[in-house]
Amino acid sequence: MAPTKKGILERLNAGEIVIGDGGFVFALEKRGYVKAGPWTPEAAAEHPEAVRQLHREFLRAGANVMQTFTFYASDDKLENRGNKLALTGAQINEAACDLAREVANEGDALVAGGVSQTPSYLSCKSDKEVKAIFKKQLDVFTKKNVDFLIAEYFEHVEEAVWAVEVLKGSGKPVAATLCIGPEGDMHGNSPGECAVKLVKAGAQIVGVNCHFDPLTCVKTVKLMKEGVEKAGLKAHYMVQPLAFHTPDCNCQGFIDLPEFPFALEPRILTRWDMHQYAREAYNAGIRYIGGCCGYEPYHIRAVSEELAPERGFLPAASEKHGMWGAGLEMHTKPWVRARARRDYWQNLKPASGRPLCPSMSTPASWGVTRGHADLMQQKEATSKDQLKQLFDRSKNH
Amino acid sequence: MAPTKKGILERLNAGEIVIGDGGFVFALEKRGYVKAGPWTPEAAAEHPEAVRQLHREFLRAGANVMQTFTFYASDDKLENRGNKLALTGAQINEAACDLAREVANEGDALVAGGVSQTPSYLSCKSDKEVKAIFKKQLDVFTKKNVDFLIAEYFEHVEEAVWAVEVLKGSGKPVAATLCIGPEGDMHGNSPGECAVKLVKAGAQIVGVNCHFDPLTCVKTVKLMKEGVEKAGLKAHYMVQPLAFHTPDCNCQGFIDLPEFPFALEPRILTRWDMHQYAREAYNAGIRYIGGCCGYEPYHIRAVSEELAPERGFLPAASEKHGMWGAGLEMHTKPWVRARARRDYWQNLKPASGRPLCPSMSTPASWGVTRGHADLMQQKEATSKDQLKQLFDRSKNH
Amino acid sequence: MAPTKKGILERLNAGEIVIGDGGFVFALEKRGYVKAGPWTPEAAAEHPEAVRQLHREFLRAGANVMQTFTFYASDDKLENRGNKLALTGAQINEAACDLAREVANEGDALVAGGVSQTPSYLSCKSDKEVKAIFKKQLDVFTKKNVDFLIAEYFEHVEEAVWAVEVLKGSGKPVAATLCIGPEGDMHGNSPGECAVKLVKAGAQIVGVNCHFDPLTCVKTVKLMKEGVEKAGLKAHYMVQPLAFHTPDCNCQGFIDLPEFPFALEPRILTRWDMHQYAREAYNAGIRYIGGCCGYEPYHIRAVSEELAPERGFLPAASEKHGMWGAGLEMHTKPWVRARARRDYWQNLKPASGRPLCPSMSTPASWGVTRGHADLMQQKEATSKDQLKQLFDRSKNH
Amino acid sequence: MAPTKKGILERLNAGEIVIGDGGFVFALEKRGYVKAGPWTPEAAAEHPEAVRQLHREFLRAGANVMQTFTFYASDDKLENRGNKLALTGAQINEAACDLAREVANEGDALVAGGVSQTPSYLSCKSDKEVKAIFKKQLDVFTKKNVDFLIAEYFEHVEEAVWAVEVLKGSGKPVAATLCIGPEGDMHGNSPGECAVKLVKAGAQIVGVNCHFDPLTCVKTVKLMKEGVEKAGLKAHYMVQPLAFHTPDCNCQGFIDLPEFPFALEPRILTRWDMHQYAREAYNAGIRYIGGCCGYEPYHIRAVSEELAPERGFLPAASEKHGMWGAGLEMHTKPWVRARARRDYWQNLKPASGRPLCPSMSTPASWGVTRGHADLMQQKEATSKDQLKQLFDRSKNH
Repeated sequence: MAPTKKGILERLNAGEIVIGDGGFVFALEKRGYVKAGPWTPEAAAEHPEAVRQLHREFLRAGANVMQTFTFYASDDKLENRGNKLALTGAQINEAACDLAREVANEGDALVAGGVSQTPSYLSCKSDKEVKAIFKKQLDVFTKKNVDFLIAEYFEHVEEAVWAVEVLKGSGKPVAATLCIGPEGDMHGNSPGECAVKLVKAGAQIVGVNCHFDPLTCVKTVKLMKEGVEKAGLKAHYMVQPLAFHTPDCNCQGFIDLPEFPFALEPRILTRWDMHQYAREAYNAGIRYIGGCCGYEPYHIRAVSEELAPERGFLPAASEKHGMWGAGLEMHTKPWVRARARRDYWQNLKPASGRPLCPSMSTPASWGVTRGHADLMQQKEATSKDQLKQLFDRSKNH
Repeated sequence: MAPTKKGILERLNAGEIVIGDGGFVFALEKRGYVKAGPWTPEAAAEHPEAVRQLHREFLRAGANVMQTFTFYASDDKLENRGNKLALTGAQINEAACDLAREVANEGDALVAGGVSQTPSYLSCKSDKEVKAIFKKQLDVFTKKNVDFLIAEYFEHVEEAVWAVEVLKGSGKPVAATLCIGPEGDMHGNSPGECAVKLVKAGAQIVGVNCHFDPLTCVKTVKLMKEGVEKAGLKAHYMVQPLAFHTPDCNCQGFIDLPEFPFALEPRILTRWDMHQYAREAYNAGIRYIGGCCGYEPYHIRAVSEELAPERGFLPAASEKHGMWGAGLEMHTKPWVRARARRDYWQNLKPASGRPLCPSMSTPASWGVTRGHADLMQQKEATSKDQLKQLFDRSKNH
Repeated sequence: MAPTKKGILERLNAGEIVIGDGGFVFALEKRGYVKAGPWTPEAAAEHPEAVRQLHREFLRAGANVMQTFTFYASDDKLENRGNKLALTGAQINEAACDLAREVANEGDALVAGGVSQTPSYLSCKSDKEVKAIFKKQLDVFTKKNVDFLIAEYFEHVEEAVWAVEVLKGSGKPVAATLCIGPEGDMHGNSPGECAVKLVKAGAQIVGVNCHFDPLTCVKTVKLMKEGVEKAGLKAHYMVQPLAFHTPDCNCQGFIDLPEFPFALEPRILTRWDMHQYAREAYNAGIRYIGGCCGYEPYHIRAVSEELAPERGFLPAASEKHGMWGAGLEMHTKPWVRARARRDYWQNLKPASGRPLCPSMSTPASWGVTRGHADLMQQKEATSKDQLKQLFDRSKNH
Repeated sequence: MAPTKKGILERLNAGEIVIGDGGFVFALEKRGYVKAGPWTPEAAAEHPEAVRQLHREFLRAGANVMQTFTFYASDDKLENRGNKLALTGAQINEAACDLAREVANEGDALVAGGVSQTPSYLSCKSDKEVKAIFKKQLDVFTKKNVDFLIAEYFEHVEEAVWAVEVLKGSGKPVAATLCIGPEGDMHGNSPGECAVKLVKAGAQIVGVNCHFDPLTCVKTVKLMKEGVEKAGLKAHYMVQPLAFHTPDCNCQGFIDLPEFPFALEPRILTRWDMHQYAREAYNAGIRYIGGCCGYEPYHIRAVSEELAPERGFLPAASEKHGMWGAGLEMHTKPWVRARARRDYWQNLKPASGRPLCPSMSTPASWGVTRGHADLMQQKEATSKDQLKQLFDRSKNH
């Protein structure tokens, strides 16, 4: 980090807005560098130019944080893919750190090393084993001297607490976000209870990422904030939602929607939806505002543009964007020029262009995908047992 | 071009499928490098790394053609933007050629130099003046030795014919695509009549691009093919549609939809829609199959995957993509694993996630955007007069 | 008929608007007196109070015509039902005439005796046989001295012509309506050609009924009018459409929609849709304006209210209806009172309240209902052969 | 009542299902006999044949209860209409009783005298004054010797309690239904609390009617049942919902939907929706199952058909209805015959036929109908003050 850059806590303590980046796995899947299903980030080492370019686009869009592209980059997850890897986990994690640092240095951004949920936890390994997994990634982050750490995408607050406990060992600031909605985590801990556990474990920044649409995520973080304040604790708040509308999700989020992950297009948020999100997040007292799956650079740019009055500047990419559609003022057709207005885009209800499609889906759950009960029966045995074990263990904690 | 590469006509004459790339202006607008409204391509010179990366992604997705990023790069259009340019038109066109060539050389792709509709034609300049504009771009393409030429995005077949006449002067193969639907061009020429005019002017490949969704475009090219065959002529056929569903468009295409250009998200085609498109285009006898606005690399990959049996190979990016969702077979949840099947994705009708939004819109036209009649009155005067002039002139041809 | 009542042709020749009634089979099915599938009208004799009441409601709504409830009351159809009837066809037809006359005498309405398509025609009986069927119903209408005759709901213009030829024998005015859309009848006769055939056969009033939504029907009658005028003939025009929105129908109309006949509810037109319909029908030069399946009395009242300025009076039932929602002015809640305005209801796009349902369906056709191919194969044999025969015969005419 | 008929409590105590009738004001508004806005039932005296016919249709559909058509027939409401009445309240109430009795005697139905919310309560009259209003209607019911009494359509449990207290004076069984949803009444009493108050006041049957769709109403009655059981009390349960889908309603129900009351058509439930409703109500332990606004006779028939196995018989009107569409088996087209199956109709998601319309609306509330703030400001003053008074008073109880 350049000596002049303020750290994440200095920024947040000063009341500054910190804008996060968007989700890498979905964006790079569309660009051809990540495989849906495994969702692992070996592209950091294999195709650095593609990862670097995406970092750069988020930077131009106004992001203050370059998260290392290390999602699902724990050794147990990488092995779990079934393919023998040409690259070691350390190589991938190191390459990801170098790319994030390179681009962060091109602007006013910090590097955050990220860890996420592990197959080891889901297969009921002990806290010691799970923590060892996180420690391996942390060693790389320490070596590469990232600016702060994020434990993200945890469905079970218990695992997130373990991650925070490991990351705290580095002495660097730690943020922790769960992928939960207003109903809480998979063990019935409410958002408020989850947040309190994370703060007590040492996280200075808490919130949610992924699994739900922006307004649902803001609502969840509000519940977290209420819980933390009620417990007499203090924290900073953070939100990195999906860029998909998910009014029909159940408690497990967009994974259970029938459209996940290959037919979510009609749900993609517009830039105008992002303006509303950024404003509501800000009004809720959240100051670290970013994105997760589905976010493209223009979504982050919209967040930056909405909060430009508070931040005092526009992002670099706004050079290529008129506020509220102003670029249309030069269009040939007068009725297109007439769209260069804030209230036009704020009030528009965009059509789906799909008259044979409904507006909501029924989320799946155990056994729901009709006609495939047999197929599932066969496959689910193991994980169902494991899930039961998890729940049982959780009750004893 | 590497000496071993077959030219565009050799490929088409041999019955090979040629896969085009996707639209650059929309993709780069989302990445932060093109301004909606002007839609000009100065990023080719300003941000070559971003343009190069997009070329590379389309190449990995299976594209056989790298179109130079020279859309709206005629001098009259670049000046028309209202901003004094730091870069000359020649600089932009040359940079675009270099990037296309650099990436084409990384695989089995050809470079196509592209010209498009001009403000000069719309403001009723003479054929001599309009042709001089095209000639300036052609000089760059000749100097940079592109492999073939494309005249694209013409609403008026007359202007397209002028473009073809200029491009033919180079001795290189010429393709010509109009941005029209089944109702024909802005002067009432049917698709069949348009195609005949283009073939007679010397285009070896004819078709449509932009303005309508894939199935509408395939339907239009079929009408072109019928016209050409009825006239006893011969041609190759090409289609590069939108990646947006547009069942509600009128004859002027997606520009008139209220969602254009900033709220088209719900209309984005899924990869599965692309499979259907690729198959229908192939069945219609079209062999040059690509995309235009809205296409992301994964859309082109889906076209390549659908036509893999005919082509005999998968594109590089399919290394990161299981056919028909096969990558989901390793998912933790059994009901997500159950989605790793072709018929699941083919039959799914994806929800919009927007219960307050309709499925179709009413396209705008002169005076339609209610409450802004006054605003428009003021602005449209000039162009309406000009349009009338155009129509009058057209009648005399 | 009371001596002072003007006949149907006197009214139309004088330029008066004649408002028809609504469809009886659908309305009485919902009330519990008609069976969907057979759709036969034995309730006229079995439950006269129910039929009388529906007549009365249409009369109060402004209808000038009481059609005898004799739809599908030909002997061959009644027998075709499979049940041995306690009532003869003559009994049903006579009872229907009596009820229509009784209510017509309560206001300014005429009685129209109606015949419709026969199973005899569909099973390829000769013109002599088919005409004998119509003659039996006509004998009742003559005995009961109805005011005029309607041949309605014919898909094959040939059969309609035969019906007109029979009805003409009575000396009474004859109207003829086909259940076709803009694409014409089942043998490829365009609406214009059909209308010419009907006028030449002696019908003084021609048009369409059933199978399509109001605006599609108006469009079809316009095509009929153009055909008649082009042929140098003269006629009056009539339209009695569905009260269901059918934008997704193919040429065979709403029968082929998957929702037919038991899930059409979301498609029911509002009274405000009826205002638009009445105005468009009037503007198209149609002067006999009524309804068919799906029409409830309030739909006809809306037609009467829209045309009240032209007719010079409101219908009786408007005593219980404020124009454009004026009755809401006395509501307790101010935001409901604010709905007592014409532009509120004209601009409202009513929600379906069904977020899991699409806005359009795919019409069925031979073999389309997936998974039931076998079921169909078995059953369709006969009728397919018969259909072929019909088409063959038609070609020779 | 014929001596052989069992009373309402005997039936319910014996575990029998009692099927209610449907809503009269909406059905008769469509038939031309009730004015939307006032919604008063003077048609009972003015047009007895129309009211009698509707009673008869519900009886044929399987209803065991004929509710007197006395909704909003309290003297204060009738006067409130603003028009000087030719008929006294007593005349209307008496006529309604006679009609209900006449038709009840044609089958196995009981007569229920009904009272509903009063303007006197809403304008903050004392309990004495409000009770006097109910007493006047009760005097008619006593004179006409109805079989039992229903206090229905109360938004404020306090007023409903007063009504029950009055009705109990007659010695006849009393049912009480509120028009509330799962969030409770307008003073924040939960459904459970409301039910306990009603049972304590003496109601033997409690539940909800109107304002919400069937599944929401069943959910609300379940909450009532839980409350009553938790309080160690006993009651029978009753539900008479809307026949409109209302997923988008807020706590005040369908009145606040922008489509109320003239554009609710797309929300009308199909007969198959009714099967699901009847089954869920039955499974929830509700034994008095009927309908309110939007119900047509065929909706009640569907309830009767779903519960035919439990009741042991089909209703009279099923003579004109094949179970699960069986009547289609005789259709000409094989693909329509293929619809004569239970699973076809149960799985169908009916299209709206309205591609320009959304699937959900935003309910209105104070000040929400944009652009009419001024209009409302003016009108709401009084009632807002009155509402405040109501709330204040309520707090002191």
